[in-house]
Amino acid sequence: MTNISLLSKSKSFNGEVRRYSHKSTSLSCDMKFHVYVPSKSSTPSSVLWFLSGLTCTDENFIQKSGAIQYASQNNIFLVCPDTSPRGITIENAEDKWQGPGFGAGYYLNSTTDKYKAHFQMFTYITKELFELINKEFTDTININKHSIFGHSMGGLGAISLFIKTNGQYKSVSAFSPISNPVNCDWSLHSFKEYLGTENKEAWLQYDPCHLLKNYDGKPFDLLVDQGSADEFFNDLKFDNLELACKENSKINLIARLQDGYNHGYFYISTFIKDHIEYHSKHLNK
Amino acid sequence: MTNISLLSKSKSFNGEVRRYSHKSTSLSCDMKFHVYVPSKSSTPSSVLWFLSGLTCTDENFIQKSGAIQYASQNNIFLVCPDTSPRGITIENAEDKWQGPGFGAGYYLNSTTDKYKAHFQMFTYITKELFELINKEFTDTININKHSIFGHSMGGLGAISLFIKTNGQYKSVSAFSPISNPVNCDWSLHSFKEYLGTENKEAWLQYDPCHLLKNYDGKPFDLLVDQGSADEFFNDLKFDNLELACKENSKINLIARLQDGYNHGYFYISTFIKDHIEYHSKHLNK
Repeated sequence: MTNISLLSKSKSFNGEVRRYSHKSTSLSCDMKFHVYVPSKSSTPSSVLWFLSGLTCTDENFIQKSGAIQYASQNNIFLVCPDTSPRGITIENAEDKWQGPGFGAGYYLNSTTDKYKAHFQMFTYITKELFELINKEFTDTININKHSIFGHSMGGLGAISLFIKTNGQYKSVSAFSPISNPVNCDWSLHSFKEYLGTENKEAWLQYDPCHLLKNYDGKPFDLLVDQGSADEFFNDLKFDNLELACKENSKINLIARLQDGYNHGYFYISTFIKDHIEYHSKHLNK
Repeated sequence: MTNISLLSKSKSFNGEVRRYSHKSTSLSCDMKFHVYVPSKSSTPSSVLWFLSGLTCTDENFIQKSGAIQYASQNNIFLVCPDTSPRGITIENAEDKWQGPGFGAGYYLNSTTDKYKAHFQMFTYITKELFELINKEFTDTININKHSIFGHSMGGLGAISLFIKTNGQYKSVSAFSPISNPVNCDWSLHSFKEYLGTENKEAWLQYDPCHLLKNYDGKPFDLLVDQGSADEFFNDLKFDNLELACKENSKINLIARLQDGYNHGYFYISTFIKDHIEYHSKHLNK
């Protein structure tokens, strides 16, 4: 039985970029994802997951970040999932960055009648796609070495998934994460639609600041870059992230305010080397 | 008088990616282009032009090639023009890669009644935009140090413009150029529309193989990469390019057949470092 269909492949930096589609049971729709498979090495590859931001698909990061050369150098297998369920119809579900809707899955499991049949991105990434990658690429990767990072909404996702899965990922980092969605109007608007208007406790369960402040597991490092010229600076709440981590001695935040950089991929590409080498170091500890 | 309007800017690798629009007199329409301005240095930057392929705009290369980091390291100012006139109406002009039409300007000057009012890409790149860059960025760049490279249709353009302008560009290279368009059905279809169905001599004036074979100026190097798994391999005529250069002792062809690579940006990004360092070496001779 084939679980995934190969849509395209391209050699790059001696490895291969591949795009696949598969039927997702957790999202009840067909999904696409990209991987980068580094060239064969005597050591199985570590796996690094990148969660993309609002409006993105599985394509943006692999095409624009410049990550492949560093994944190749560090024998890292990249996984780039999509950001929401696709190809379904939900009345008035909007396809724009303010969400909720397509391209705006927020890496959470919806509980509302309107969204819960499809918007189960937490389960999709941490269970379904995680197991599928481990199964399909078991000859290539070390299934015990996964790490995770992301950008903007995907930075929120990386921090949230890292904490909530308790050791599934070895390390975590983020570019300009949505750090405190319950204090950001457009994020909270989506949270209310996905999790109900009254359920404030459910919102907090996907809020990085809340999760970081209350984390009580094994100490960990958290690398976060944030551009000072980010057009969403006021909404992302970088300061609140720093405060939350300061209140919790279990978290060693490496916060880097990058002078003059904005929110886009020209900024991400400048610092992607640092993030991939950071994860490589943690994965090979 | 402002000749260009800044549409966006993003800091990247300590320099700045900027997108501009301007009214083009040679094309009789509004055009956009991207530049990368490296961070201030005591030495004026060299200028490197990248001509994109069919269906591309001014965006593809700057977003996907990974060129910026190497431009930054080598103090190179990148210029990324669009591939055709835009925002005009021409009856039945097609917007697809087989052309003729938008995204398929072929870097030539049209002579047919249907296209000549707008499709003057040779003049646009070599004269109008060249002079505009030299004027607008005169404090940043060394106006005597320009080089040129390109991909596919833009590889054709780079070779053609390098030869036909006789010393305006210091060096030239190409990724997977359309090397012999008069022997490629879809290219010749566009050539006929732009230059007339009968005028074979005019077609040859934009055919890299013909230009290289008959070149009689100062000897020069030509770096060309070609993927062996290129989906357009049979149409690009890499072999004819090698033959044409072999017949002319003035040309030192550095032809690299890259095993297993296809036609896309995942391939270009693998070898972009080599090309930028090649131009940097020639520009600093």
